[in-house]
Amino acid sequence: MQYNDRSNCGRLGSADIDKTVHLAGWVDALRDHGEVLFVHLRDKSGIVQLVFSPEFTPEEICRQSTSLRSEYCITVFGRIVKRAEGTENPNIETGDIEIIVTDMTILSRSDNLPFPISEKAMMGSTNETISREPVSEDLRLQYRYLDLRRPGMQQFLIKRHKINACVREFLDQNEFIEVETPILTRSTPEGARDYLVPSRVNPKHFYALPQSPQLFKQLLMVAGFERYYQITRCFRDEDLRSNRQPEFTQLDLEASFIDEEFIFNLIEELLCRMFEIGGTNLPRPFPHMTWQEAMDKTGSDRPDLRFEMYFVEATDIFTQTRYSIFKQILQRGGVIKGINVKQASESLSKNVLQNEYAKQIVPGFGAKGMTWMRVTGDQLDSNIVQFFSKEEQQTIIKRFNASDGDVILIIADPSLELVNSALGRLRLHVADRLDMIPKDKFVPVWVTDFPLFEPTEEGVTSSHHPFTAPDRIDFDPADQEDLLSLLSRSYDIVVNGEELGGGSIRIHDPATQQKVFAALGLSPSEAEEKFGFFLRALDFGPPPHGGLALGMDRVVAMIMKTPSIREVTAFPKNRSAFCPLTQAPSLVAHEQLAELGLLDLGKAESLPGSDQEQDTIDYLSWVSRIGFEDNERPMIESALDDAVKMAQAVFGIAQEYEPAISVVRGQNCFRKGSSATRSSFVETGALLKNAPSVKGDYFRVASILE
Amino acid sequence: MQYNDRSNCGRLGSADIDKTVHLAGWVDALRDHGEVLFVHLRDKSGIVQLVFSPEFTPEEICRQSTSLRSEYCITVFGRIVKRAEGTENPNIETGDIEIIVTDMTILSRSDNLPFPISEKAMMGSTNETISREPVSEDLRLQYRYLDLRRPGMQQFLIKRHKINACVREFLDQNEFIEVETPILTRSTPEGARDYLVPSRVNPKHFYALPQSPQLFKQLLMVAGFERYYQITRCFRDEDLRSNRQPEFTQLDLEASFIDEEFIFNLIEELLCRMFEIGGTNLPRPFPHMTWQEAMDKTGSDRPDLRFEMYFVEATDIFTQTRYSIFKQILQRGGVIKGINVKQASESLSKNVLQNEYAKQIVPGFGAKGMTWMRVTGDQLDSNIVQFFSKEEQQTIIKRFNASDGDVILIIADPSLELVNSALGRLRLHVADRLDMIPKDKFVPVWVTDFPLFEPTEEGVTSSHHPFTAPDRIDFDPADQEDLLSLLSRSYDIVVNGEELGGGSIRIHDPATQQKVFAALGLSPSEAEEKFGFFLRALDFGPPPHGGLALGMDRVVAMIMKTPSIREVTAFPKNRSAFCPLTQAPSLVAHEQLAELGLLDLGKAESLPGSDQEQDTIDYLSWVSRIGFEDNERPMIESALDDAVKMAQAVFGIAQEYEPAISVVRGQNCFRKGSSATRSSFVETGALLKNAPSVKGDYFRVASILE
Repeated sequence: MQYNDRSNCGRLGSADIDKTVHLAGWVDALRDHGEVLFVHLRDKSGIVQLVFSPEFTPEEICRQSTSLRSEYCITVFGRIVKRAEGTENPNIETGDIEIIVTDMTILSRSDNLPFPISEKAMMGSTNETISREPVSEDLRLQYRYLDLRRPGMQQFLIKRHKINACVREFLDQNEFIEVETPILTRSTPEGARDYLVPSRVNPKHFYALPQSPQLFKQLLMVAGFERYYQITRCFRDEDLRSNRQPEFTQLDLEASFIDEEFIFNLIEELLCRMFEIGGTNLPRPFPHMTWQEAMDKTGSDRPDLRFEMYFVEATDIFTQTRYSIFKQILQRGGVIKGINVKQASESLSKNVLQNEYAKQIVPGFGAKGMTWMRVTGDQLDSNIVQFFSKEEQQTIIKRFNASDGDVILIIADPSLELVNSALGRLRLHVADRLDMIPKDKFVPVWVTDFPLFEPTEEGVTSSHHPFTAPDRIDFDPADQEDLLSLLSRSYDIVVNGEELGGGSIRIHDPATQQKVFAALGLSPSEAEEKFGFFLRALDFGPPPHGGLALGMDRVVAMIMKTPSIREVTAFPKNRSAFCPLTQAPSLVAHEQLAELGLLDLGKAESLPGSDQEQDTIDYLSWVSRIGFEDNERPMIESALDDAVKMAQAVFGIAQEYEPAISVVRGQNCFRKGSSATRSSFVETGALLKNAPSVKGDYFRVASILE
Repeated sequence: MQYNDRSNCGRLGSADIDKTVHLAGWVDALRDHGEVLFVHLRDKSGIVQLVFSPEFTPEEICRQSTSLRSEYCITVFGRIVKRAEGTENPNIETGDIEIIVTDMTILSRSDNLPFPISEKAMMGSTNETISREPVSEDLRLQYRYLDLRRPGMQQFLIKRHKINACVREFLDQNEFIEVETPILTRSTPEGARDYLVPSRVNPKHFYALPQSPQLFKQLLMVAGFERYYQITRCFRDEDLRSNRQPEFTQLDLEASFIDEEFIFNLIEELLCRMFEIGGTNLPRPFPHMTWQEAMDKTGSDRPDLRFEMYFVEATDIFTQTRYSIFKQILQRGGVIKGINVKQASESLSKNVLQNEYAKQIVPGFGAKGMTWMRVTGDQLDSNIVQFFSKEEQQTIIKRFNASDGDVILIIADPSLELVNSALGRLRLHVADRLDMIPKDKFVPVWVTDFPLFEPTEEGVTSSHHPFTAPDRIDFDPADQEDLLSLLSRSYDIVVNGEELGGGSIRIHDPATQQKVFAALGLSPSEAEEKFGFFLRALDFGPPPHGGLALGMDRVVAMIMKTPSIREVTAFPKNRSAFCPLTQAPSLVAHEQLAELGLLDLGKAESLPGSDQEQDTIDYLSWVSRIGFEDNERPMIESALDDAVKMAQAVFGIAQEYEPAISVVRGQNCFRKGSSATRSSFVETGALLKNAPSVKGDYFRVASILE
């Protein structure tokens, strides 16, 4: 074999001195010293220095070596020697030695590189890594095969492999078996948009790519496999945010005859092993926090516990206040909560607090304003502190455990939800700005006891999916108060404020399942239509079971301490769901579309709703999930015309800019004072036909694992 | 935890006698002996017998036990006792013991089963496994969660998991790393039909699901990963044969700085380990056979070497023959080859040979006829032996190494290809009929040295794909004879006549790649259009590399000794690419299609070819890959009308029958005596726009891994 005596560059060392070696790899860098040429040869294992010297290297090889350029692929034979004292290079692992080349073959040449690949300086005295201009991500993705040659990028994928191997080894030990579930399948009730695949064999029918193997893993439990896992691809056709891909990898697992304790222990042990590969020891046991406590203390169901600065409830302090804004809010049943930013009065000047936070940042979080107080000595200092009684001021200081130099930030609003949300984002913003978040600290937490249902105008809707088990089964599906008091047996694993995964104990009792459907307002026939094949499975002795899914891209990125999942993905798409390397998606031949029956779908009578003319307003209503009253339609139509005109004008002048990401948190809103909330199109019933979970005339967009 | 003290049914034994256990699982079978109820409790590990006896079991539990039915899911506490002598059940692993139940909870009930699940008799005296009526596969697939409860089916998936784990462990040891490649990607040049996924974000553009990660794995080699593997899903939208699925799993691997030897050693060791999991020891080293030798000896590039009966070349024996049929064939440059079926004259009567084989079976293989001779004593006996001279007869006997009781079968034809193909199928047919194929014998063979090119009317086309390396690079791309003498550096691994996988050393030198494209008649701009992004990668120092792909579904099915890949797939589709369980593919909402921009594709101007009216004949021409002359079109049109009418008539009367699989081997044919072989539609150039590999006006349908 031609290469069977090949050694790895990065594994050579002083112990190999005087040995003859065969190496193959890439020219990482070159340095020409007149007669003598030094080359950094790089392979997967690392870098070693080659020396082409007329003293030892045949003349022909020396001549050839002058044609070497960066990223040429070569193979060499040579002798390992100790470097002359003072010429060692501590930047590379093999910096004590070098190779005197005795033979070389150029295996292939390289064009000029679109961006530099080398990461290691050739001189011991230079900085350890080479600093360079940032390269645009699309250029990196277009030449991904060069981008991935960089040792740092290679390490991401090598470590990712090791993390996967660690997962498999651990789950194997625990008698989980990996079972492959279909990619060409039917829409599952995850709530996001499906990718569809037209079927040629069954014209006008479509497969859906799975958003997760949720129903298949539950079916495997019904099939008696007891412990299943899969590291598998999932697909969601959503508008891409910075850290989202159309396809993503999930560690999906499910087990029978278990409870929450089993999942907690299993996943804690697993995550500890995974993080160890990145050099991080997670503290065990992971703390638990109920959803209620997380919301009360941090305003988020993904609490970042790397720092405290928990919410302080202050509503009761102001029951008798003269301060008219608080007074009005309390009269409307509102709440007042705040945080104490310890020792921040130097960093947060009055100007910053009033003009940045109170006037801009906090309103950007959806709150009307923010109240701030700086603690000077044992006094409060603020633009509104004169409105607070002495007693109120003293209670504030005591309640917030405040001392000289602290800054108290307070948000008040009639809506508890809004206070929590805005104060939660303020907490993160301040912590980030003041560098209060320790680097390289990882704080996991289990968030549990989520509400099973959320209230809607007409009843309740599931917080997760309708197969999540409730904490008790003696509820009355017709009693909304009873329903809203139910907690779910679901759990999320959150690290540093990022949700890495979640799951639940599932319902396995058909009667309970029927009660949940009844609570959601689903008739038995509606339930059958939506979940029929799965419900049927519950009729055949399903075991008690539960599971969890981890978003592997996120977990690996966090373990590797990189913020972007694209860095730990070999061939990611960009933010337009486009691959700059392969140019996918692309146009296809007319004949392919014809063969798939895609050319006349607009006329096809067999498709639901296709006999109706498509109305722009109905379409808008469907896409936006907002219903219109009939008398509103002319107005909307004219607004739409204007919007289109404006969009065209904007498109004309702004094409070269990247779209900005809104800083305002998206929320579901119902328009106030509107009696009807649906269009006449909705009333046909076709709209909700494929919705995963329907309550009355609404369907639920389930919370999803990002 | 509720179940943390649970034991596994199948792991209990005599050593556990007198212990108290907690079990959970399914009622596999019941036997009611009046007062005492016996139950087979099954979990993933196996079966143990429960005893509900009023003597030891609380009255309430005894009462409950009377409601038990097959496949109820229950949990029990009980005491392990030795069975009374003579009541042991050797059918189950725990047949020496039983559990006296002291407590039981019914976890869930089961409806009546659509088919039985239990495989083990409750009585020691009964047959080991229960024989039963075969169940229709669609019913099994519809209730797959019950089908998979059968221990035999569970074992398939459990062993599949173990085989995957074995693959990963072995490749990890060899420093291969698993890298995930995209599922939403661009068409790769595999030659089969792509599944397309419409893009919502980039309207009228489509992703393709990968037929294999071929180009990505080569890009990973360019990226310097050196050793890559992936157990991954691949997709081909082909008409399903019995053992094919729209999605299938492939072990894909690639390595740099290696040669064929490396792949042979690696895969031999790997396959041996994989087959060991099924209890089979493969003999090493695997034999090698060149493509030429395989064709000469067995007429197949997938030779079944479990038995010999190799082809005997007999052309030269008949150069002076009086036998007019042979004479005519030889005058047309034909060949005469045969096989000696040893000691078969009792099984193969004259009647069978003449009326079945010569008149029906062999013509079904595409040959005009078959000549047979039985050896009696040292004489030949046949309906045509009188036409052969004494010398010819003696040479036949000698050449075929024939002796008393043998049967010689001969096929003669002007086409060597046809002789090989028909005789190859005859060899398999006879071996099967006469039970000459040893059961449970596994004979692997590497088939190597395939021709790099195959001749076409206008030049040559690639036998595999155009990235396969030739055995020498000094060829002249304009010299057809030179091109046809080239062998490729590809290799297939064949076991028992089934191709389990294949691969090649790839071209890594851009100049050689350009020569191959030139040989195929591709201009540089055509090559750029088709393979641009990949060709660009070869400009940046690609390493020498090669690899292989194994069809895991086939390999696992073979290891598990089941003929059907559906048995080793958790949720397969049926032969109509339909899932009876989930009813995928299914209709989708009109609005989903609208959102994907699929409703007006027929009118879209941006699609290539869409400005032309779709012509039925052109469409037929495209689908069938047969070109028509203009003056033939009226005739074809009328034939098509008749065909549609007949199809409708047939459809009306034959809907309930399963389609038959043709016994005639499909082959590419050119119509004789036709000067033009393309329609005017072809000449627009749009037809071949997305074809992976084009030669003149043809495109190549690459040979594929089944």
